[in-house]
Amino acid sequence: MNDRFKFKLISKDKNARLGKIYTAHGDIETPIFMPVGTAGTVKGMHLRDVEQAGAQIILANTYHLMLRPGQNNIREMGGVRNFMGWKKPLLTDSGGFQIMSLGKLRKIEQEGVTFKSHLDGTKYFLTPKLSTDIQNALDATISMQLDECIPFPASYEESERAMKLSLQWAAQSKDAFQKRDGYGQFGIVQGSTFQDLRKHSSQKLTEMDFDGYAIGGLAVGEGQELMFKTLDFTSPYIPDNKPRYLMGVGKPDDLIGAVKRGVDMFDCVLPTRSGRTGQAFTSRGTVNIKNSRHILDKRPLDNKCDCHTCRNFTRAYLHHLFKAQEILGLMLLSLHNIHFYINLMKNIRISIKNKEFEKFENHFLENYYLGDVETI
Amino acid sequence: MNDRFKFKLISKDKNARLGKIYTAHGDIETPIFMPVGTAGTVKGMHLRDVEQAGAQIILANTYHLMLRPGQNNIREMGGVRNFMGWKKPLLTDSGGFQIMSLGKLRKIEQEGVTFKSHLDGTKYFLTPKLSTDIQNALDATISMQLDECIPFPASYEESERAMKLSLQWAAQSKDAFQKRDGYGQFGIVQGSTFQDLRKHSSQKLTEMDFDGYAIGGLAVGEGQELMFKTLDFTSPYIPDNKPRYLMGVGKPDDLIGAVKRGVDMFDCVLPTRSGRTGQAFTSRGTVNIKNSRHILDKRPLDNKCDCHTCRNFTRAYLHHLFKAQEILGLMLLSLHNIHFYINLMKNIRISIKNKEFEKFENHFLENYYLGDVETI
Repeated sequence: MNDRFKFKLISKDKNARLGKIYTAHGDIETPIFMPVGTAGTVKGMHLRDVEQAGAQIILANTYHLMLRPGQNNIREMGGVRNFMGWKKPLLTDSGGFQIMSLGKLRKIEQEGVTFKSHLDGTKYFLTPKLSTDIQNALDATISMQLDECIPFPASYEESERAMKLSLQWAAQSKDAFQKRDGYGQFGIVQGSTFQDLRKHSSQKLTEMDFDGYAIGGLAVGEGQELMFKTLDFTSPYIPDNKPRYLMGVGKPDDLIGAVKRGVDMFDCVLPTRSGRTGQAFTSRGTVNIKNSRHILDKRPLDNKCDCHTCRNFTRAYLHHLFKAQEILGLMLLSLHNIHFYINLMKNIRISIKNKEFEKFENHFLENYYLGDVETI
Repeated sequence: MNDRFKFKLISKDKNARLGKIYTAHGDIETPIFMPVGTAGTVKGMHLRDVEQAGAQIILANTYHLMLRPGQNNIREMGGVRNFMGWKKPLLTDSGGFQIMSLGKLRKIEQEGVTFKSHLDGTKYFLTPKLSTDIQNALDATISMQLDECIPFPASYEESERAMKLSLQWAAQSKDAFQKRDGYGQFGIVQGSTFQDLRKHSSQKLTEMDFDGYAIGGLAVGEGQELMFKTLDFTSPYIPDNKPRYLMGVGKPDDLIGAVKRGVDMFDCVLPTRSGRTGQAFTSRGTVNIKNSRHILDKRPLDNKCDCHTCRNFTRAYLHHLFKAQEILGLMLLSLHNIHFYINLMKNIRISIKNKEFEKFENHFLENYYLGDVETI
């Protein structure tokens, strides 16, 4: 029984879906963007600003937290949410994606993956059961199965092997999941860009009856067109009555295109990572605030934005902060970018509700692709 | 006429003074601590948190701002306060202290000081007039005269020479100061630790009738005892009806000892600089949050503190943030430290008002010197 964790599909506008996920830690309106709080903090942001931006769920990384401060310490501190002071739902990944990125530092076997910590070289052996046990200890509202995420491009044979291994790991992850009222666990569809593999993966996972389904193995270099195509043929195999999560995606136009293809949940480091390097997302595309054309620009980053940064600070000041390498620069840009992403999803939800998603899409993309306002 | 810039001495408790400075940009209750916003930002802090901590005036550094973004750009942006979004009073130093610290990169002459920018080696010649013109352009509520700040120890002859040069520069700075209603300019008393030099400097500056007087050339390595002794014999030479500003000081017990000796204003980078390296100031002395003894400590930094950090986060979490080198760690510690300093001054003002300054001093120092709470 898991009465308190459920997904309600409220309405559809063509394939775009408006929904709500009910959890032990509060409700989540979908489509939703989840800010990434890798090591128990959304980088460069006060948590209250993440909340104030309207975040309804954030993500934390199992890989980083298992290495430091370790799952036992976090359990002792009452779970990640209590540890970092976040009261709403939290999703943890399985650690798989980070470990796959370690390259030579890891070795995949049938039972799990051996890897060396990037911090101190300590050897770990991560199994589906251990990943799930850790996520239980972290007290994640939503846990993810351990999967094998392969790079792009990959051969059919390699994609099939990894997809089938991920299915075995899905079953083992499910067995290890500690059922708690209002907590959920998602399976992850793999199969690279091959339709029959995605179909097989989706159907087998659906038989296992997870609380939601992620689409993994995308945003790994295949490009937007192929990603959209893969979503087009994968979405129909995923049951309508469960949330769909596209992992690690993406740019604003990726999000819009994926919502159009029936995706409900997203996470990405882009808004905070870009914020740290001086790139801002605006209704007129991206802005590199380090460019000297902003040096005396008294306008906000985005005159359509009502975030703390845009309400209070000029481009000239933000430019100065980045040139002077002042921490406040990345703080203000990360805050703006997270606000921009969350606000985008809010506007998407409103448009689906009003059956105007396509109109919104066209309007947003038209402005977004115009590029930044001209220098005055 | 400068009707709107004035100092009112409200009451005294022995030599400790309670006062108020009236300025064009708001009133300042003294004794006051001024957070340092070197390049137009209090490092690692959102400005609203500086304000929320109770800051009534902040400081910006002329040296840093003249190099980047430059006084003309800041004038174009409406002054430092408008540029950074600070509505209350702002004090700028003269640039002298930073330039003196450049060592081989500078050369002092009668007319001013030649120096090379630490950013790109560009040569500048800073005169009392130029320093003051820049501060006018920065729209500082309180400007400082250009002075020569010598290292400690210094011979009597060297101290006398520099003090006399500083007096000439004081007169030239005063001539260049653009009188605006509610804006003030301070002279700077020099003379190292020699009583007759400090007396001469104070008397000559007083004849020039500045809006306030700083005590310069302290906190340069002479130690607390000699600093207090110098304050003891210098304060009586400074007129009672003007604010007294001890530049670049200091630790919490330095501040208390200086208030006891009649000082009204302070600035120091210590709370933010310490915050960035993991050192917190608490009612029980300093805490190095990176120490592993905090790893599972569920207590706040200081259970007597009501800042955002102490109300919401455990030592364990702060420790984790510093170990993981997460930006939020320095953000939360800087916020706490600034709050601690400003709150200390608030409590000092209350104690002077209640004629209980000595009682407060004893109570504060007794706890402060106890050292941090024991590990549990």
